[in-house]
Amino acid sequence: MSETALSINTLAGHLVDRMVADAAKLRIAVSKGERGETIIDAGKAARGGIDAGLRIAEICLGGLGTVELGPTGSNPKWPFEISVRATDPVIACLASQYAGWALSHGEGKGAFFALGSGPGRALARKEPLFNDLAYHDHASRATLVLESDRAPPPEVTDKVAAACGVSPENLAFIFAPTQSLAGGVQVVSRVLEVVLHKAHELKFPLERIIDGVAAAPLSPPHPDFIQAMGRTNDAIIYAGQAHLFVTGPADEAKALAEQLPSTTSRDHGQPFAEIFKKYKGDFYAIDPMLFSPAQAIVTAVETGETFRAGRIDNARLDACFS
Amino acid sequence: MSETALSINTLAGHLVDRMVADAAKLRIAVSKGERGETIIDAGKAARGGIDAGLRIAEICLGGLGTVELGPTGSNPKWPFEISVRATDPVIACLASQYAGWALSHGEGKGAFFALGSGPGRALARKEPLFNDLAYHDHASRATLVLESDRAPPPEVTDKVAAACGVSPENLAFIFAPTQSLAGGVQVVSRVLEVVLHKAHELKFPLERIIDGVAAAPLSPPHPDFIQAMGRTNDAIIYAGQAHLFVTGPADEAKALAEQLPSTTSRDHGQPFAEIFKKYKGDFYAIDPMLFSPAQAIVTAVETGETFRAGRIDNARLDACFS
Amino acid sequence: MSETALSINTLAGHLVDRMVADAAKLRIAVSKGERGETIIDAGKAARGGIDAGLRIAEICLGGLGTVELGPTGSNPKWPFEISVRATDPVIACLASQYAGWALSHGEGKGAFFALGSGPGRALARKEPLFNDLAYHDHASRATLVLESDRAPPPEVTDKVAAACGVSPENLAFIFAPTQSLAGGVQVVSRVLEVVLHKAHELKFPLERIIDGVAAAPLSPPHPDFIQAMGRTNDAIIYAGQAHLFVTGPADEAKALAEQLPSTTSRDHGQPFAEIFKKYKGDFYAIDPMLFSPAQAIVTAVETGETFRAGRIDNARLDACFS
Repeated sequence: MSETALSINTLAGHLVDRMVADAAKLRIAVSKGERGETIIDAGKAARGGIDAGLRIAEICLGGLGTVELGPTGSNPKWPFEISVRATDPVIACLASQYAGWALSHGEGKGAFFALGSGPGRALARKEPLFNDLAYHDHASRATLVLESDRAPPPEVTDKVAAACGVSPENLAFIFAPTQSLAGGVQVVSRVLEVVLHKAHELKFPLERIIDGVAAAPLSPPHPDFIQAMGRTNDAIIYAGQAHLFVTGPADEAKALAEQLPSTTSRDHGQPFAEIFKKYKGDFYAIDPMLFSPAQAIVTAVETGETFRAGRIDNARLDACFS
Repeated sequence: MSETALSINTLAGHLVDRMVADAAKLRIAVSKGERGETIIDAGKAARGGIDAGLRIAEICLGGLGTVELGPTGSNPKWPFEISVRATDPVIACLASQYAGWALSHGEGKGAFFALGSGPGRALARKEPLFNDLAYHDHASRATLVLESDRAPPPEVTDKVAAACGVSPENLAFIFAPTQSLAGGVQVVSRVLEVVLHKAHELKFPLERIIDGVAAAPLSPPHPDFIQAMGRTNDAIIYAGQAHLFVTGPADEAKALAEQLPSTTSRDHGQPFAEIFKKYKGDFYAIDPMLFSPAQAIVTAVETGETFRAGRIDNARLDACFS
Repeated sequence: MSETALSINTLAGHLVDRMVADAAKLRIAVSKGERGETIIDAGKAARGGIDAGLRIAEICLGGLGTVELGPTGSNPKWPFEISVRATDPVIACLASQYAGWALSHGEGKGAFFALGSGPGRALARKEPLFNDLAYHDHASRATLVLESDRAPPPEVTDKVAAACGVSPENLAFIFAPTQSLAGGVQVVSRVLEVVLHKAHELKFPLERIIDGVAAAPLSPPHPDFIQAMGRTNDAIIYAGQAHLFVTGPADEAKALAEQLPSTTSRDHGQPFAEIFKKYKGDFYAIDPMLFSPAQAIVTAVETGETFRAGRIDNARLDACFS
C-alpha cells in the first residue's frame, strides 16, 4: 500500500472546511479578505462560543489532536475541564499549536500585531524552533490561528502566503480575542503544548516524547485583556495536569517530571495577571519555567517507571478565577 | 461568502437520517406511519438503550448540542454522568428541547397524550414561550421527540404536519417511554434546558445567555412511570450542575445564580416521585423553582465575575435512586 | 422500511477503512500480506499510540462500542481513564471483543501464537462460547485484532479466511504488542468485556444484559510482556468499575452484583504479574473470578433496584503501576 505522508495543513484544512460549513451553528463569521483569503471571526463581531473554541483548538493542533470538554470531580467549584490529547504531540503542539510566529504590520496606533499559531507555521518554518523539529509539511493550503481581535491586514496576508508557499485564496485565518469564550477555550487547550514547549526549553530530546494527554479547567472570560490572558494561564499553571510518555532512560524521565510542573518556578503563586503587571508587561521577564501545568506525570515506556511532581491547587485557582 | 441561516430542523434532520441508518446498531425500530411520517420507536417494542438516548438528546437540542456520557469522580456510587453543552443554548434548549407542545387526541381510555419536544416546535411556534424567542426556523422537514410509549395517531400527525408547514412524509416522530433506558437518558439530558427554562421564569433576559454547559448522573430506570420520571428529575435536582455564561451587569448574574439552584425551592428535599404524589399528580402545583440543577454557576462575561449557589447532595441522590 | 440486519464485521470494516485512511496521523503501518490480506501494525515497527489504541478498541467492539479517554477526579495519581460503552454489550463484548480465538502455526522457536479478538470471531464461530450466543453475522469482510508483536503467517491467514468464509483480500488483521501504548489501551478497553465474560461464567443469562458502561485508568506501558499484561489487568482489577442494566428478578441482579467484582476472588490483592508468576504462567490456574472490575453496579430495570459490590483501591493500583 502506498504511504501517504502526514500533512497537518491538509488535515487541519478539512476541519476548517467543516467549521465553515457549520458557521451558523458555531456563530462564527466567515468572509473573504482583500486577497481572497478566508477570514473566520470566532469571537469579535461574531459571538462564537465554547464549541467554536474547541474546534479552533483541534485546528491549531494540525488535525492531530482531540479536544473535549466535560465534567470531572477534581474541583467542585470549577467542574468543567478541557482535555487534550494528540498523536505525535511534538508535531501537533510544537510544529503547529505553539503561538510562535510574530506577525506585524505598520506602526503606532493602527499597527497590527498578533502571534500566529497553527499548522501554517510548519510550512513557513520562520522560527528558530523549527531547527529542532524534523517535521516538514507539503500542502497546497495553509491555516493560521490568531489570538487577536481583528483580521490581519492584506500586507500580513501577503507575507504569510509567500512564507507558506500558497496562494492567498488557499490561506485561512481564524481569529478570536482572548476575552471571548472561543479565545479562552483555545488558549486553555494549550495545556499539552506548554508541556512540550517546556520540555524543549529543558533540552529534553523531543523525538523521545511519543504521546501525551493533558487537562485544565475551563476558565471564565474577563473583559480586560490582561485579566483574560491571566486566567487562561492560571487554569494551566494552578490546575492543569499532563501525562507524557517518553522513551529513553528512567533518570531522564524522572528529571523531566521533576522540572516540568509550574510549581518549580520562582514566579509560581500569584495570579498570572499580577505577575505580568509586576514585570511591567514584559513577557520575557517572566520565568519561562512558569508556563506549564500544576502537575506533571512522565512515564518512561522503556523501563515502565512513572514519575510525577507538582500539585493542583484548587484554592489558588479559585482565587485567580474570582 | 453567502450566509447560511441556522435551521435546527435541518440540522436535526441530518441526525435523524444517521439514526435511521444506524437503526440495527441502536436497536431502534423505524417504520412509516399511516400518513407516511417516519416513526422511530427507541424503547417500547424496540430495546433501544443508552446510545439511542444520547442520539435522541442531540436531536432534541436541534443539532446544536453535544451530549456525552462518561465517568466522573464526583459520586463514587453513581459514577457515570451525562454532560450537555449547546451553542446558542436559548435556541437549542428553549426553541427546541423543552417539552412544551402538548399533543392530544381522543378522550377516555384510548386517548393519546404526549408532550412534544424537539425542533418541530420552532416551526409550529404554538406555545406562548415563542413570544419571547426571536428564533424562527425555515425548513422542509420537521422532527419531534415524544416522551411516550406509543406513536401518535394519524390525527396528531396531521395536526403537527400542518402546524409545522411540512408534508407528513417529511415529519419524523421519535418516541421512548420514560421507563426505558433511552427515555431516561434523554430526560436527564435536559439538565441544561431546565436552567434556561428557569432563567426565563425568573425573567432573566434570554438574549443575554450566550453559552452553557451542564451535567447530571445517569439515572437508573424504573418500571413505574412515576418512579422513572421521578428519578430523571432527581438526577438533575439533587446532583445536576450547570455553568452559564451571560452578558449584562454582575449583580443580575449574581441574582440569577442565587435563584437558579433547586435548593431554593420549597419542595426541595424529597424524591421527586414523592413530591409528585404529595401534590396528587398535579404537575402545576409543584413549585416551578424545583426544576433546576442542584448547583448553578453563572459567569458575567462583561465583568469577569462568577457566582455560584446550591450544592450537590450525593446522599440524597442515592436515597432517590435506591 | 426495510430492516437492515446488524453486521459487526461490516460496521467494524468501516472503522478499519477510516483507520487505514488515517494511517499517517495514527502512526500505524498498513501493508498487504502474502495472501492479499490487510495487515495493520499499530505498535511494533510502527509507533502507534493512545489514539490508535482507542480506534482498535472500537473495532474490537464490532463497531457497537464507544471508547473514550478523559480526566476524572477519581484518582489524582492516575487521572486519565478509558471509558467504554456498547449498545448490545453481549454482541459487542462476547461475540466480538473477547480474545477467545487461539490462532497458532508451527512449533518451537518460530511458532506463531496469538489470541484473536474482534468481529471475525462471530463469522468463524469456532469457540464453544458461541453455543450460548444467538448472534450470527453475515458479511463479505472480516477483521481480527491480535495482541501480538507480529503479523500472522500465511497459513493462519488461510485458516482464518476459510473459517470466516471470506477471501483473504477481504480480511484485515490489526496487531499491537501488549507493551505498546496502543496495545495497552486496547486491553484496558476490555473493562466492560470482562464483566460480560464473568457474568457468563456465573451462568447469568446473557440475553438479560441489555446495556452497560465501564471505565478503568489508562495503564502505563512496561517493556516486559508479563509486567505490561499485568498492568492492563491491574487497571481493571483494582480500579475498574462497571454499571450493567439487566432484566429479570432483583435477587438475581443482586447476586450478580455481589459476585462480579474482582474483590470476590481468592487471588485479589497482588499485582497481576506476581499472581501470574505464582501460578508459573499458567493462565488457567488463576482464579477466573479475578478477571473483572473492582466495583460493579447492576440495575434490575424491571424492578428499578440497583445493587453494587466491590471497591476501587487506588493505593493498590498505584503499587501495581509503580
